[in-house]
Amino acid sequence: METLTAKPAITRDTKKLVAMQKIQSVALKAIHDFFEREGFLQLMPIMLSPITDPLGPDPGSSVLKTGEIEYLGQKLQLTQSMILHKQIAIGLGLEKFYIMSPNIRLEAAERRATGKHAFEFTQVDFEIKGATMSDVFKLVEGLLKAIVDDVKIRAVEELELLNREIPKWRFPFRQVTTHELEDQYGSDWESSASLDTDTPFWAICHDREFYDKKDYSREGEHFLNYDLIYPEGFGEALSGAEREHEYDRLMQRITEDKLDPKKYASYLALAKEDRLSPSAGGGLGVERLVRYLTGSKHVGDVQVFRRVPGETLLY
Amino acid sequence: METLTAKPAITRDTKKLVAMQKIQSVALKAIHDFFEREGFLQLMPIMLSPITDPLGPDPGSSVLKTGEIEYLGQKLQLTQSMILHKQIAIGLGLEKFYIMSPNIRLEAAERRATGKHAFEFTQVDFEIKGATMSDVFKLVEGLLKAIVDDVKIRAVEELELLNREIPKWRFPFRQVTTHELEDQYGSDWESSASLDTDTPFWAICHDREFYDKKDYSREGEHFLNYDLIYPEGFGEALSGAEREHEYDRLMQRITEDKLDPKKYASYLALAKEDRLSPSAGGGLGVERLVRYLTGSKHVGDVQVFRRVPGETLLY
Repeated sequence: METLTAKPAITRDTKKLVAMQKIQSVALKAIHDFFEREGFLQLMPIMLSPITDPLGPDPGSSVLKTGEIEYLGQKLQLTQSMILHKQIAIGLGLEKFYIMSPNIRLEAAERRATGKHAFEFTQVDFEIKGATMSDVFKLVEGLLKAIVDDVKIRAVEELELLNREIPKWRFPFRQVTTHELEDQYGSDWESSASLDTDTPFWAICHDREFYDKKDYSREGEHFLNYDLIYPEGFGEALSGAEREHEYDRLMQRITEDKLDPKKYASYLALAKEDRLSPSAGGGLGVERLVRYLTGSKHVGDVQVFRRVPGETLLY
Repeated sequence: METLTAKPAITRDTKKLVAMQKIQSVALKAIHDFFEREGFLQLMPIMLSPITDPLGPDPGSSVLKTGEIEYLGQKLQLTQSMILHKQIAIGLGLEKFYIMSPNIRLEAAERRATGKHAFEFTQVDFEIKGATMSDVFKLVEGLLKAIVDDVKIRAVEELELLNREIPKWRFPFRQVTTHELEDQYGSDWESSASLDTDTPFWAICHDREFYDKKDYSREGEHFLNYDLIYPEGFGEALSGAEREHEYDRLMQRITEDKLDPKKYASYLALAKEDRLSPSAGGGLGVERLVRYLTGSKHVGDVQVFRRVPGETLLY
């Protein structure tokens, strides 16, 4: 019999791991209860597709490549996010839905140090036909309040075991533009601004992916998009936007981003036939949420199976 | 501007698609409510790992290959099922849990014809430390009853639109051995036996993967495993087993199956250290469940994004 060379399991504090999974379970249940009350359908995720979110061009991105496999002669990409599919689903008649969507982003090894990057994680990815930014703000604030309220009531022992006290938040969350944040904290504003508060805040107006809608009512480069930032240094919780859906504007944005429109051919074909619609939505990272709720140092600490860039995987 | 060559969206009956997603949403909510009531934790899925379910050796399998990518020097496989990870999670102190687990199985194109194969789908994958087959039977019968009851109450209009009447089931479900089924229906018993009933039944004792426990209390080849078969020709609903967890038995089964133990090194190392435990569990396919509930011809018909072997994907 051959000798097996794998190392034993990474030592985990079992009690803490179980407590974190309990807090996660309470949070997930609160999420499902909330979206059902709000009349959302739950759709199933997909992991392989001819198209996926390009995640850029973004000078802040360190994704090395898009995971890809070949199957029966087709090249299929691993889901980086389901944003394009959410827009297509709206085109297929689904007006208000969420998806528990695993995302794979093959980050550079140095992202290990940020504490908030895992190379696979799950987003609570939602989209609403005809919605605006302010609709999403109201929805997400209600969602986060429901989650935190449930966790504080249903996971008392677990929070105590983890020595975690979640601060009381003030509603509604503050809205700040990225221009203001840059003026106050510099271009790397996220962690400083996050450390500077004990209530989440909305960072609005980011110059990023082509599907985030430009504010055509204003001069200059303004965008109808938003990130939600956790307090206490935990950083980004959610990212979202109103969406571009018109063919000419999508083509212009894709061209400006120097992306290859052929890569989005089936999506653009729907836009050309006017089968996409205005919508807004976002994606809330489950593991980052649990990291915040449990006050954990690294997002990998809350994963039963750590998926941290640069770490060797045993299983 | 280049001409885009993608074809327009596959024409879908929007009303039916939305009705199916509503029935799916009611079913998913019933699943979460049920597992919470029963005290299960919900864990997050993983999609990439150095180890995954071999799905065989199985003469009935037509999976062409395991999806694989390379990331930072590690070869990682796409999840075919999380069975090995469920056993490891029990080793890490998680005693009773479920996972909404997307599975990727790159099936041969001819599997398109079965009506029940998609190359990606989601399993409700659960595992219970120290449980036996009969514990699982009772749990799953309660789960399916809760789902069907909720769908019949909360999706009346949708069932009507789809012209679907779900028959009334008799509890507890019948248990039949695969030996009896083969005697009655021949080796390809699944669809004939499924057509022959209007209540699900348990097909027990399958000679299959190494992690399904052999019945060491009996002479000959008997196994402590089970499939749940839907009535009306819809076929397999769930697959599960009591598990092998002892190093020597696992090694023997792996050797008998002519699999390479090095591929399961980290899992076997845990077994060798006695860190795996007896458990039982199973996986209920979400899309097959929704196919049954909606009375759909093909499992792909209930997927917003069809993932049927041999079909060209647009998105």
